[in-house]
Amino acid sequence: MMNLKEMDQTYVLPTYARNYVHFVRGENSMLYDAEGKDYVDFGSGIAVCSVGHGNPRLAKAICDQAQKLIHTSNLYLIEPQARLAKRLAELSGYDVQTFFANSGAEANEGAIKIARRYGEVEGEVKRYKIITLEHSFHGRTITALKATGQEAMHTYFGPFPDGFVYARNIEHIYDLIDDHTVAVMIELVQGEGGVQPMEKAEVQKLAETLKKRDILLVVDEVQTGIYRTGEVLASNLYGITPDIVTLAKGLGGGVPIGAIMTTHKGILKAGDHGSTFGGNFLSTRAALEVLEILEGHKNSGELDHMLILFEERLKRVAAKHPELFDKEVGVGFMRGLRVKEGKDAGDIIKAAFDARVVVLKAGKNTVRFLPVLTITKEEMELGFERFESALAKL
Amino acid sequence: MMNLKEMDQTYVLPTYARNYVHFVRGENSMLYDAEGKDYVDFGSGIAVCSVGHGNPRLAKAICDQAQKLIHTSNLYLIEPQARLAKRLAELSGYDVQTFFANSGAEANEGAIKIARRYGEVEGEVKRYKIITLEHSFHGRTITALKATGQEAMHTYFGPFPDGFVYARNIEHIYDLIDDHTVAVMIELVQGEGGVQPMEKAEVQKLAETLKKRDILLVVDEVQTGIYRTGEVLASNLYGITPDIVTLAKGLGGGVPIGAIMTTHKGILKAGDHGSTFGGNFLSTRAALEVLEILEGHKNSGELDHMLILFEERLKRVAAKHPELFDKEVGVGFMRGLRVKEGKDAGDIIKAAFDARVVVLKAGKNTVRFLPVLTITKEEMELGFERFESALAKL
Ligand SMILES: Cc1ncc(COP(=O)(O)O)c(C=O)c1O
Ligand SMILES: Cc1ncc(COP(=O)(O)O)c(C=O)c1O
Repeated sequence: MMNLKEMDQTYVLPTYARNYVHFVRGENSMLYDAEGKDYVDFGSGIAVCSVGHGNPRLAKAICDQAQKLIHTSNLYLIEPQARLAKRLAELSGYDVQTFFANSGAEANEGAIKIARRYGEVEGEVKRYKIITLEHSFHGRTITALKATGQEAMHTYFGPFPDGFVYARNIEHIYDLIDDHTVAVMIELVQGEGGVQPMEKAEVQKLAETLKKRDILLVVDEVQTGIYRTGEVLASNLYGITPDIVTLAKGLGGGVPIGAIMTTHKGILKAGDHGSTFGGNFLSTRAALEVLEILEGHKNSGELDHMLILFEERLKRVAAKHPELFDKEVGVGFMRGLRVKEGKDAGDIIKAAFDARVVVLKAGKNTVRFLPVLTITKEEMELGFERFESALAKL
Repeated sequence: MMNLKEMDQTYVLPTYARNYVHFVRGENSMLYDAEGKDYVDFGSGIAVCSVGHGNPRLAKAICDQAQKLIHTSNLYLIEPQARLAKRLAELSGYDVQTFFANSGAEANEGAIKIARRYGEVEGEVKRYKIITLEHSFHGRTITALKATGQEAMHTYFGPFPDGFVYARNIEHIYDLIDDHTVAVMIELVQGEGGVQPMEKAEVQKLAETLKKRDILLVVDEVQTGIYRTGEVLASNLYGITPDIVTLAKGLGGGVPIGAIMTTHKGILKAGDHGSTFGGNFLSTRAALEVLEILEGHKNSGELDHMLILFEERLKRVAAKHPELFDKEVGVGFMRGLRVKEGKDAGDIIKAAFDARVVVLKAGKNTVRFLPVLTITKEEMELGFERFESALAKL
C-alpha cells in the first residue's frame, strides 16, 4: 500500500513544494494532524479560512444547502446569489452590481474584461491598456499572470495578451497613462508581494485623478477583502470608491468563490460573460453565512479588539529580535515581519512549523501572518509562545 | 421590501437572461420551487449535477468535511486531493498526474499553459500554436475565449493572446499544422456548439498522427467527462489516450472544481502554476464521493441501462414530431433534438418549461438534454410525458 505522500507524489502534478503534514481537522485557529498533534494556524489557508476551521455555523449552512440544492445553472434565479450580491453592496456601502466567479484569478479576469468593455466605443476597443504595479499578484490564468507585475511570471506560457503596463509605484502610474489607458489595477496591501500597504493619501489622490480622467480604478481585494484589514473592504479603510473591486479567498470561508463588484451597472449584458459554477447555491449560501458571522464579529468589537492585540504582540516579537527582523509591517490581520538582510524567512517559517505554529512566506523575505479573523486571545497567545520558542532556537 | 427578482436585477450584474423561477430544493431529477411545484430537470445545471440534486451520500460527505476541515493551502498535503488524483488515474486507465482548479475555464487555462510549456525548449517558447475547432467552447477567461472557435467570442475583451488557430473540422486540422504547432485542443462531443459528436475513426487517426508528429492532443472533457457519455471519460469511449484532459462540471456534483490530467508527469514544477482553492478538502472530498457513487452506478449496469432507454425515448419523440425535429443527436447522456429550419428551439424550451420539464438550448437550434446521471425510469417517463404534452401544444 502506498502511503499518502507517495500517493500525492505519484498522482498530483508537482506544482507545489508540499509539506507532508497530514491535517485532518480544525477548530477555529487550531489544526490537528492525523496523530492528534495540534498546530496554531496563523496562515488561514492563505487568507481563506476567514471564520476559522470547522466553524459550526458555516458547516451548518453548507450542510443544509448541500441537502437541499447545491447547484442549478445561472439561467434560473439563485436566491442566495441575489442575497449575497445585496449584502456585498450594503456592507461595503458601494452602489454596485456583482458577478460571481470561482477564484481570485477568475475574478480578475472578469475585472479586466469589464475594464476593456468600458474602453470600447461603438464596437471598437479604443482604450485597453491597464496599468498594474510591480510586485503585484493577480493570479495564474494567462491574462492574470500578464497583469501580475513580476517579470518572472511572464515566461514559458506565452504568447501573453498585450495591454499591460507596470508602474514601479503609485507615483509612477501617472507617467504611464496615455490615450489608450482604460484602467489602473492595484492591491491596496500587496499580499504575495511581501505585505506592502500603499500610502492612504497617495491612493486617495490616485482615485481622484483617475476619476477626473475617466480611467477606471480596479482594486484587487482578493486577499484584502472581507474584513481582512478590519473593514469590510480595504477600499473602505482607504476611503475610496473604486470602479471595480475583486474578491475571492475569505469570501466563502473555504468554499471556492470569487466576485467582481462594479459601480458600472449593466456594463456587461446577457451573454457577455458567464461561469458554470459561479454564484451557485452552495458557494453563495456559504458566503452569506461568512458575511453574517464576520459582521457580528465586527459589530461586537471583538474583531477590532483582537486586531490591536495581534499587532501589539507582533511588534513585541519584532522588538525582541532585532537580530532577525527589521520591522513589523501590514494592516489589520494582514501582517508581516520583515526579515533582516542575511537571514532567511524560510528558516524561520520552518522552525515555527516545528514548534507547531503555521506562518507563511511573502515576497522575498517577509514572514507573513494571516490569522483566522475569529482568532481568540488564547489561540493568539499560544501561537506567539510557540513562535517565540522557535525563534529562541534559531 | 424588494422581491427576489428585483433584488437580483438590482444587485447582480445582468450577464444572464434569467428565468425567475425560484427553485429551493431538489431530489435526484426533480426540482421544487418555492410554491412546491415540481419540475423534471433534464439540464442538470448544464451537466453539473451528475449525481442528482440533494443526493444524500454527496450531502453527507460535504457535511462531514465541512465540519472537519474545508480548506488549507496547497503548501500542505490534502488527503482527499491525493486520493482523487489517484482515482482519476485508475478510473480513466491513464497514466497521469492531475492539477486541480476551480472551473472549466481554469482547467483549460492550465491545459494551455502545460501545452505551451511543452513547446518551450531551453527557456524559449519554440512551439506555441494551438489548433481548436470552430463551434468549440472552452470558457470565459480571456485566453479560453480566444481558444473558443467562435468569432463572436473574440470581440470587446481584447487584446487577446495570439497563438490560436481554428479548424473547420478534424480533417482541416492537418492543413493548419505548422512548425509552431504545439497542440490540438478539441471536445469529443461539442456541447455548447450544438451536441456534435466527432467521428470516432477520425479522432483515432488524429490522435495517432499527432503522437507521431509530437503534437499534444488536449481533450476538453469539461462537459463530456465523468460518465456523461457513459464511460468515465469520452476519451475512453473514443479509445484514445490524450496528452491532456480537462474536467470540471460533473466532477464535484455541483461543488466548484476543475482538473487537468496529463500523461506528461512533472511537466510543471513547483511554482509554475497554482490556485488558492484548487483541490481543497471540500471540493476534492465531494468529487471523491461523486466518483464512488457513479462508479457503483456504472458497475451495477444501471447507468448503461438508463442511457439506452433515454436514447430510445428521445428517438421516439423525434420520430413522432417530424414537423419539429430533423433528428436526434448525441452520445450517452449528452443528447439533443435538432430543430427543423423555421422552427425555434427557444419556443420549444419555453413550452417545455411551462409543462415543468427543464431542457436547454445548444448551438443555434438544438434542444439539449443533459439529465442527471442517476436518473430513474420514473423520472425519465415523467419528463418525456411533460415534454410531449408541451410539444402537442405548439
Ligand atoms: C491579490 C491577489 N489576487 C489574486 C490572487 C489569485 O487568487 P486565486 O489563487 O484564487 O486564483 C491572489 C492569490 O494569492 C491574490 O493574493
Ligand atoms: C467544453 C467546455 N469547456 C469549458 C467550459 C467552461 O467551463 P466553466 O463555465 O466551468 O468555466 C464549458 C462550459 O460550458 C464547456 O462546455
